[in-house]
Amino acid sequence: MINKQIPDIVVGRLPLYLRALQRMHNQGREVTSSQELGERLGISAAQIRKDLSQFGEFGKQGTGYQIGFLMDQLRQILNLTDVWEIAVVGTGDIGSAVARYQGFSNRGFVVKMIFDNHADVIGKKVGNFIIQDSANLVPYIRQAAIKVAMITVPANQAQEVADQLVEAGVKAILNYAPTSINVPPGVRVQYIDPVIHLQRMTYYLD
Amino acid sequence: MINKQIPDIVVGRLPLYLRALQRMHNQGREVTSSQELGERLGISAAQIRKDLSQFGEFGKQGTGYQIGFLMDQLRQILNLTDVWEIAVVGTGDIGSAVARYQGFSNRGFVVKMIFDNHADVIGKKVGNFIIQDSANLVPYIRQAAIKVAMITVPANQAQEVADQLVEAGVKAILNYAPTSINVPPGVRVQYIDPVIHLQRMTYYLD
Repeated sequence: MINKQIPDIVVGRLPLYLRALQRMHNQGREVTSSQELGERLGISAAQIRKDLSQFGEFGKQGTGYQIGFLMDQLRQILNLTDVWEIAVVGTGDIGSAVARYQGFSNRGFVVKMIFDNHADVIGKKVGNFIIQDSANLVPYIRQAAIKVAMITVPANQAQEVADQLVEAGVKAILNYAPTSINVPPGVRVQYIDPVIHLQRMTYYLD
Repeated sequence: MINKQIPDIVVGRLPLYLRALQRMHNQGREVTSSQELGERLGISAAQIRKDLSQFGEFGKQGTGYQIGFLMDQLRQILNLTDVWEIAVVGTGDIGSAVARYQGFSNRGFVVKMIFDNHADVIGKKVGNFIIQDSANLVPYIRQAAIKVAMITVPANQAQEVADQLVEAGVKAILNYAPTSINVPPGVRVQYIDPVIHLQRMTYYLD
């Protein structure tokens, strides 16, 4: 059923649909429509129907979508039926915030280990984690078979950390360092840099 | 020279170009090419040339781009010649990390004030800021004529905060709360939710 040739831009909208459905579900709702989803998300109803139709037949004309069913389907499509363990590299403000963040567990992820290369923090705790020495990053991550990692180190260290993560077998990297990183085919990278988002908006301001 | 009808997807790549150029500039470089920029960013050289050509003539065939000149041009296009002041709402881990973040100032932004609605933190310090009572959000932001804000409150409070920011005259909102928010025309929103990025990658994992 899943067609791996679907454009990444479509794939990128599925988590938004899942998040909106989860919110409706938490509010006790059972049925929704592409119109309602569209209004919540600022995406056209036609776009949502078209996106979802690429993966199967999830709703009926006139009766809308069963929220619980559609959530289950989206979780399967996005490979979220099991929980993904995450390794975090860097324990500055952002790394520490991520390590303590309570919002991963019910959305398919759990932070499992956290690394730093500063002698003064190795062995200390952040959230529930003992900070590990980055020198052990490759063997520890490989041993735990962790496939997802976050980079929260300074920009000038990001590529070196990415190289080590790839060596350790990581296949998906969320990079908070404000710089692009290069990874081999088969490894995916997403970026979080608040300034990039801010600059994209100031273009429109007078 | 600036054509406001340029697609937002093109606008969204300009900050990436600026960031890469800044990094080359910091390394003492003076000239680059669309090829080199493309390799650093994982974007084709042709795409970069096409994007930049929508705003003017910034390089010459065969001699590449003068890094300093192109940075200046991009800063003008993105309205970054002056520094934008930011209001932060929410002083949890993310709000605190943002308030202390050193990476805004040389990229066109400065955090100016920070708010929370919890009596136990109002009046305390985070970074260099005294935490202000959210009850004063609208008059304080309006008085300071701040146009850019970040929301770092829980999801169920995000819409109410967004409404207040709009009332205060904010035109650009970076929303860290894991939920969509609705704003009137003329106000722009960008989102940072790490789980959305992670789920977009797990789709491709086995």
